[in-house]
Amino acid sequence: MNASVDTLASHETALQTLRDTLQARLSQLLPEGSERDLVSAAMRAGTLAPGKRIRPLLLLLVAQDLGGSAEQPGLVDLACAVEMVHAASLILDDIPCMDDAALRRGQPTIHRQFGESVAILAAVALLSRAFGVVAEAQGLTDSCKTQASAELSRASGLEGLVQGQFRDLSEGAHARSADAILSTNTLKTATLFEATLQMAALAAGAPHEVRHPLRRFAEDLGQAFQLLDDLSDGCCSTGKDMHQDSGKSTLVAIFGPEDVHRRLQTHLVRADEYLTRACGQQAVTRGFVRAWFDRQLAMLGG
Amino acid sequence: MNASVDTLASHETALQTLRDTLQARLSQLLPEGSERDLVSAAMRAGTLAPGKRIRPLLLLLVAQDLGGSAEQPGLVDLACAVEMVHAASLILDDIPCMDDAALRRGQPTIHRQFGESVAILAAVALLSRAFGVVAEAQGLTDSCKTQASAELSRASGLEGLVQGQFRDLSEGAHARSADAILSTNTLKTATLFEATLQMAALAAGAPHEVRHPLRRFAEDLGQAFQLLDDLSDGCCSTGKDMHQDSGKSTLVAIFGPEDVHRRLQTHLVRADEYLTRACGQQAVTRGFVRAWFDRQLAMLGG
Repeated sequence: MNASVDTLASHETALQTLRDTLQARLSQLLPEGSERDLVSAAMRAGTLAPGKRIRPLLLLLVAQDLGGSAEQPGLVDLACAVEMVHAASLILDDIPCMDDAALRRGQPTIHRQFGESVAILAAVALLSRAFGVVAEAQGLTDSCKTQASAELSRASGLEGLVQGQFRDLSEGAHARSADAILSTNTLKTATLFEATLQMAALAAGAPHEVRHPLRRFAEDLGQAFQLLDDLSDGCCSTGKDMHQDSGKSTLVAIFGPEDVHRRLQTHLVRADEYLTRACGQQAVTRGFVRAWFDRQLAMLGG
Repeated sequence: MNASVDTLASHETALQTLRDTLQARLSQLLPEGSERDLVSAAMRAGTLAPGKRIRPLLLLLVAQDLGGSAEQPGLVDLACAVEMVHAASLILDDIPCMDDAALRRGQPTIHRQFGESVAILAAVALLSRAFGVVAEAQGLTDSCKTQASAELSRASGLEGLVQGQFRDLSEGAHARSADAILSTNTLKTATLFEATLQMAALAAGAPHEVRHPLRRFAEDLGQAFQLLDDLSDGCCSTGKDMHQDSGKSTLVAIFGPEDVHRRLQTHLVRADEYLTRACGQQAVTRGFVRAWFDRQLAMLGG
């Protein structure tokens, strides 16, 4: 990264503006919470709690890199739909019969705040709402919305997040091969990245040729993410339960942290190659991804 | 009903053909189950177990009454999507932190067969799949699919099934007014009927004027359904846990069975008026609804 401090600072300001836009739109798209309506309150808490917003930011940045406009209101709505699916998956991952987690994003998990049945209903309502937001997004063609909905269905369902969570649960207690872990990582992370980036391409009206490199970018980025997550486990700054993965086979346990760092960098290099192929050398997303991982790794002391 | 025995028999044969078509298509649209893939197996068990198929049948019949063709492949797919949403809601209603039911459709409930985490994941995957089936349905316009997806989102989410289940849980333990029960009944049943019938109208390319009477038809039909359900509680032939509602305020407890019977008939008469307004005197759906309720009430000895 040869960017000057000034450039990095202005990038950071631009990102913060996008995050604010996302937060405001998510708040509008979610139902008003009230004391009596616990499900709405749980939907809001699960989605609006401070988070990295990495998926919706990627959607907006890649769409811009592909020639779309950040002003297009439907684009922000697609980004919000992706974040709702992600929030739903986090709520479900944390419930007692799944990971039984106490903390998420530095707060008590949704079922600890609202009870298990409300947490499950909030996750289901967020998933439903995500598809409604796609269907009702302004300024996008029906063809774009239909394809976006199909992508989101694939990513959130049996071939994506659901299968990832199931494998994590059913394999987690046993010794797992590195291949099994890598495949579960793809299901848990890369599939929703994939849908996110395809939705960016659809909304930007990008040519069909970018679809394949974007899928490969999503795959490497997803692996890099999960490796970062593995490295972060046991670190107190993640806002999640510490040692959530203790007792599970992880790539850190199999290969050791140095090798996992090397693998992470290899995935990032490959991700960058595919991203460049899809969006060109000047893609803003390139700097964003690199800076984001640099910061996270620095926080780990990596 | 002045239909001859012959006409009723041929109607029954036609309905069975539609049920067989639905069953076969549901089986195709669901993932292959295998011993290792418990979530797929749970999705199949929750959806393919013998059921009344009342919602998908209504979708097909109303679409035909509105001038659509049963041969249109996309129509059957929309009907299957609705059944998947319904199956997902039944799986979730039964889990331990909701109604904790042991039996459904005469079989052990899905969490009793597959465990709680698999049941929840199967419900989420069915919901996701339903939206994917709508998005990928052949022979329908993108505009129709987008509107169908929006209808399904409204019905399955916070304004529909989720809210109905939440109210059932949170109000169930307390004394409820008749109005509160009626409003929860609408959320639990009428909203998905409403989406079902709007999807029928969309797929048939029906004029906009039928939309309103179809919504009113769905509302009265939904109320009639829930009243029938209240009357059935405590009856052994439903395939569900007996006395599942014991301890809950029900309309039967408030008004007594005779009055509930009368109310049910009033809703059916009104439902028939709205249906006639939308689909005409000759609507096949009219005979179907009347015959279906007659049979169910006869089984209750009503």
